[in-house]
Amino acid sequence: MAQVLQGAAVIGQSGGPTAVINQSLVGFIEEARRHGCFTRLLGARHGVKGVIKGDLVDLAREAPEVLERVARTPAAALGSVRQKPTADDVGVMLQTFRKHGIRFFFYVGGNDSAETAHIVEQQAAAQGFEMRCFHIPKTIDNDLRVTDHCPGYGSAARFVAHAFQGDDRDNRSLPGVKINVVMGRHAGWLTAAATLGRRDDSDGPHLVYLPERVFDPDRFLADVQAVNTRFKRCVVAVSEGIHDAAGTPFLQVAAQQSGSALAGAQDSHGNVQLSGTGALGDALANLVKEKLGITRVRADTLGYLQRSFPADVSPVDAREAREVGRAAARAAADGAGTSGSVAIRRLAGAAYRSETFITPLSSVARVTKDMPEECLAGDHAVAPAFREYALPLTGAIEPMTDLGLHPAA
Amino acid sequence: MAQVLQGAAVIGQSGGPTAVINQSLVGFIEEARRHGCFTRLLGARHGVKGVIKGDLVDLAREAPEVLERVARTPAAALGSVRQKPTADDVGVMLQTFRKHGIRFFFYVGGNDSAETAHIVEQQAAAQGFEMRCFHIPKTIDNDLRVTDHCPGYGSAARFVAHAFQGDDRDNRSLPGVKINVVMGRHAGWLTAAATLGRRDDSDGPHLVYLPERVFDPDRFLADVQAVNTRFKRCVVAVSEGIHDAAGTPFLQVAAQQSGSALAGAQDSHGNVQLSGTGALGDALANLVKEKLGITRVRADTLGYLQRSFPADVSPVDAREAREVGRAAARAAADGAGTSGSVAIRRLAGAAYRSETFITPLSSVARVTKDMPEECLAGDHAVAPAFREYALPLTGAIEPMTDLGLHPAA
Repeated sequence: MAQVLQGAAVIGQSGGPTAVINQSLVGFIEEARRHGCFTRLLGARHGVKGVIKGDLVDLAREAPEVLERVARTPAAALGSVRQKPTADDVGVMLQTFRKHGIRFFFYVGGNDSAETAHIVEQQAAAQGFEMRCFHIPKTIDNDLRVTDHCPGYGSAARFVAHAFQGDDRDNRSLPGVKINVVMGRHAGWLTAAATLGRRDDSDGPHLVYLPERVFDPDRFLADVQAVNTRFKRCVVAVSEGIHDAAGTPFLQVAAQQSGSALAGAQDSHGNVQLSGTGALGDALANLVKEKLGITRVRADTLGYLQRSFPADVSPVDAREAREVGRAAARAAADGAGTSGSVAIRRLAGAAYRSETFITPLSSVARVTKDMPEECLAGDHAVAPAFREYALPLTGAIEPMTDLGLHPAA
Repeated sequence: MAQVLQGAAVIGQSGGPTAVINQSLVGFIEEARRHGCFTRLLGARHGVKGVIKGDLVDLAREAPEVLERVARTPAAALGSVRQKPTADDVGVMLQTFRKHGIRFFFYVGGNDSAETAHIVEQQAAAQGFEMRCFHIPKTIDNDLRVTDHCPGYGSAARFVAHAFQGDDRDNRSLPGVKINVVMGRHAGWLTAAATLGRRDDSDGPHLVYLPERVFDPDRFLADVQAVNTRFKRCVVAVSEGIHDAAGTPFLQVAAQQSGSALAGAQDSHGNVQLSGTGALGDALANLVKEKLGITRVRADTLGYLQRSFPADVSPVDAREAREVGRAAARAAADGAGTSGSVAIRRLAGAAYRSETFITPLSSVARVTKDMPEECLAGDHAVAPAFREYALPLTGAIEPMTDLGLHPAA
């Protein structure tokens, strides 16, 4: 066993917010306070940007009762950033670390953050500067490898499940075709959660389009028509990342075919912006109106609410997000001398239980994880295996209830 | 006192759904069962459409435990409709009423539904067919006259307040300009609720645009620039009904000026569709990008979730929605011989309390109620009086919490 390193610890938050990302921050602070190896507890403002600029705060001075409320506040309390540090940036980061006696780097984020932690550790080692670097997982996309699931996903999935339950009732009440766009550029985990409140075939979403499959507009139209014929209405869940066989986003294909209708969805470089715009939903709704002649077609884009809504957090997700923060602090202090990424393992048994473990940073960095085949059914549905996987993470979704509607004699 | 009428009662639901519209239905059924004057309890499927077609269900056969779950299920359990019956339609409705011995008509909805109840009562009286017609208020827009507020508003306002709280944290975390479009074509009540979770000037929404004011794109741009200069970010709440001095919706003005950018937002008659599309938010975001040169500009349209989200209902709203249904049944059975609309009166005192009363149908029909001047501040903000008015209706909105962020030495 290696000797326990001593030094200051710094933690940062990165990437898109989640409703429980501060649970991990607070779990980390709670646990780190118990270990003497951390001589100081620092926070970096806006992730690596704060490390590069030396914009650091003293987390030891945060009062426990404030931290408890911060844990319930969505989105990165330290500020976030979308920035992959270059080799030069990492050089500057190491200068900050040396200056402040920082030997422990914790980074809350997705696979890019794991990669950052990995690069920092390698470059520090190359300089003969011993560091422990830990990645604390966070992403509503649920697309990290190794871990069973990602903190942040359960709450976002709970929101999406409830959103579709309510919207399906809305659509029953005033029938038509309703298309809802869900986040998830590369993996369909969050869009699939739209189905978690369904009771049977009559409940929406009736059709689910995920980035794990090729999106064919003609088959989409045929699917919508078939559902609309059967139920006189149709609710569709679409991932923002749907794409053609070549992997080109549908919105980009549509924009190329009829630029005018989608102007504004593209930036000056011709790249299509998928989040923070209603363009994809509107394009699909127009397609249904034009090609199928259905008059009442509406689209909503669930938008940033999915990742930041404060009032519908999954209790399991909140607890696990706290725990991965604690686990990172424990692992860094345990004297094993390794760096790593905190992962979650689902334990066997009827009731859901989980535990954390540490996996090498390289096993989580860069590559992401799509939904496995066993969770998919055909090209526009989700298999029962997904429901079994996801419901323990969101917590119970109370089913909607119909009136008996007994015909009057 | 007039003699108590005896006969079957029919209830229907109309207009846009709310999260608590079924509370009113269930409250009505509960109370009506206690009064012998209602010889039958019938429900009309999809409002007046069901009355016209004779599509009626027997509500007396619904089990109490099912009703309790239906009360928690958003959107009209009987189905809704957007249809103003013509004089001929009302003639057909009266035939249905005579055929089934219906002497009591209850209609849950907004001002159009009050008008429908009024017309039915008048036309029945003209035929010498005595009826009692009651309007049960429901609308997320909160724009009915006479009543202090409308059931359905508190829950929608709670959702909007939470949505902006979370999204403001998201925007602090990853700064930029964020524009969120809120429902409310003619009145700003729901958009104003975006402010209910604010603690101070630094919290979003920093700018609020309501249909009670004229929307001037140039002043909007100046406002955004000023906020962005001060806070390095800007969160905007915009009502879908913002319009120019002539009352023309902004989206329509924008579409006329640059048709191509907004194609699809208009139907074949040139009317602009405001709900169920992201066009307004995208148009405003593009305006900010183009004119102010700010790069990170995003727009979300809160969409149908505002009126149907099942997991963030206001307890006060749920209770009052139940009570207005009960009050309608009681008023119809009280022998006073009048028709009317159920309204809510706020009682004096430190703690919020309310009671119901009956107001003439004509006092609620047709005309709607904008926000009063005392609730507005300038042309892009809300006054403290609005907060005092609205918070008892939404229930407490837990404030977000910042870290202390003490600079590291």
